[in-house]
Amino acid sequence: MPHSSYKAIGILDSGVGGLTVFQELTRQLPHEQIVYFGDTARMPYGPRPDEEVRRFALQIIDFLQNQEIKMVVVACNTATAVGLSSYRERSALPVLGVIEPGVRAALKQTRKGRVGVIGTAGTVRSSAYEKALQGARPGLHITARACPLFVLLVENDLVDTPEAEKVAAEYLAPFNLAAVDTLILGCTHYPLMAELIQKTVGSGVTLINSAEEIAGEVKSILTERRLHHPLQLTEPGYRFFVSGNPHSFEEIATKMLHRRIKAYQVTL
Amino acid sequence: MPHSSYKAIGILDSGVGGLTVFQELTRQLPHEQIVYFGDTARMPYGPRPDEEVRRFALQIIDFLQNQEIKMVVVACNTATAVGLSSYRERSALPVLGVIEPGVRAALKQTRKGRVGVIGTAGTVRSSAYEKALQGARPGLHITARACPLFVLLVENDLVDTPEAEKVAAEYLAPFNLAAVDTLILGCTHYPLMAELIQKTVGSGVTLINSAEEIAGEVKSILTERRLHHPLQLTEPGYRFFVSGNPHSFEEIATKMLHRRIKAYQVTL
Repeated sequence: MPHSSYKAIGILDSGVGGLTVFQELTRQLPHEQIVYFGDTARMPYGPRPDEEVRRFALQIIDFLQNQEIKMVVVACNTATAVGLSSYRERSALPVLGVIEPGVRAALKQTRKGRVGVIGTAGTVRSSAYEKALQGARPGLHITARACPLFVLLVENDLVDTPEAEKVAAEYLAPFNLAAVDTLILGCTHYPLMAELIQKTVGSGVTLINSAEEIAGEVKSILTERRLHHPLQLTEPGYRFFVSGNPHSFEEIATKMLHRRIKAYQVTL
Repeated sequence: MPHSSYKAIGILDSGVGGLTVFQELTRQLPHEQIVYFGDTARMPYGPRPDEEVRRFALQIIDFLQNQEIKMVVVACNTATAVGLSSYRERSALPVLGVIEPGVRAALKQTRKGRVGVIGTAGTVRSSAYEKALQGARPGLHITARACPLFVLLVENDLVDTPEAEKVAAEYLAPFNLAAVDTLILGCTHYPLMAELIQKTVGSGVTLINSAEEIAGEVKSILTERRLHHPLQLTEPGYRFFVSGNPHSFEEIATKMLHRRIKAYQVTL
C-alpha cells in the first residue's frame, strides 16, 4: 500500500450542494488539495430510484479514484442514504458519508430528545437518519419530512423570495407541532437557505449543518490515519469537474465560494 | 510563488503520439506524477491551419493548468512548431516543446552535417526544424519532408503491412539521395514505426527519437529548478484525458504502454 497522504480529498455530489462541504473543508483543512465532482447533468438525485443513484455514485467514485485521491467524501445525503455500504465495498479508500456526522452532532445537541430531519425524497424514503438516530439512542422522538422544492429554490437562486417563505412555512410546520429542539439539515443544499429555515422554525431550534460536521469528521480521519498532506501546502489546488454545463456551475460556485473557479465537463 | 514541486508534469498531444513521450518520462522520471491530454476528437493536427492548432493547444494548456501541474510538455511537433512562443507567453510555468531537444540531439549526432527531418505537413511547412538547425549551425545540409500518411498508419495499426513499406519507401527516398547521416523523427508518432523507418533508410542513418530527447530535457529542467517531486513517490499517479472517445484511446494506450490505463473524455 503506497503512502498516499500527498493526494487530494475527493468530493462527490449531485450538483452544487456539496460546495458547502467543500467550503468547510477548505476552512478546517486549509492545506489539503480537493477534487470535486458535481453530477449536474443528472441532478437532482432526490426523486431518482435508489438503484440509479447508487450506480451514478459508483461511476463518480471510479472517476475520482483516477484523479489521485486519498479519501472519498460523499457530500450528498441521497447518495449516502441509498448506498454508503456499496461504495465502501467498491473502494479501498476511506469513504465518508454525510449522514453519520450529522447524526452524531444531533445527538450531542438535543436536550429533550426531539429531533427533526429534513431531506430530499430519496433521503427521507430511505429512513437512513431515523435508523441511525434510533440505533444510537432508542426512544428518541424523530420527525422527518421531505422538502423536495428546497433544492430547486437553491439551485435557481430563489431563496430570498416570498414563494420560498410560503414553501418553508408549509414544509416546516410539522417540526413546530412536534416541538423538536434540533433539526438536521439532511441535504447539503440546505445550509444555503439556513437563514430562512431558522426564521421559520424559530431560534429555539438548533440547526445541524452537515457540511460543518462532515468536515470535522474528515479532519479526524486524516489525523487517525496520518493522511494529512505532508507538505502543509500554502496554496493547495482545487479541481472541479461536472457532468453538465460547466459555466452555470462556475457561476453559482464563484458566488457561493467568493472565489473564481474553473470547472470542466467530463463524460462518465 | 508557491513551491510546486509536488505537482504533476502536464503533457499535451493531438492524440496517442505523445504517449511515446509519456513512456520515456515514466522511464527516466519514475517518481513523477503525469497528467496527459490527447486531443483525439480533433486530431490529426498536421493538416490544420496554424492559427487553429495554436488555439487548440492554448485551450489544452488552460485545462492542464487547472489540474495541478508544475510544467507543460508540448509532446506534439505540429503544436510546438506553430506556437511554442505563444504558449510560453500564456503560461507562468516552464513550457517545453519537442523541437529544441530533437535539434540538439541531431547536432550532437551528425558527423557529415547532413541532417534529415520528417514530420507532419504543419511541422514541415513551419520550417521550425530547419530554422533551429540553421540557427545553431549555419551551413548544415538539411532535407525535410512531410510524411502525412505515417500518423494514419500508426493510429490505424497498419505499420506492419506491405502498404506501409511502399509508403515509407516513397517518403524516405529523398533522404537516401541526400545522403543524410541523421534523421529527426519530427513527430511523436514516428517512434512507433521506427523499425520500418530504420530498415528503409538503412542502418547507417541515426534516427533521433524526440520522445527520448524531450524526456532528458524535462529531467534537466526539474533538476535546475528544483522541481523534482519531494516525496520520491513509489507509485506516482497518471491521469489521462481525451477530447474524443476514451475507449479507443485506452485500447491503443494499453497496448503501447503494456499497462491498463483509464481515460476520461473532457469538453474543452
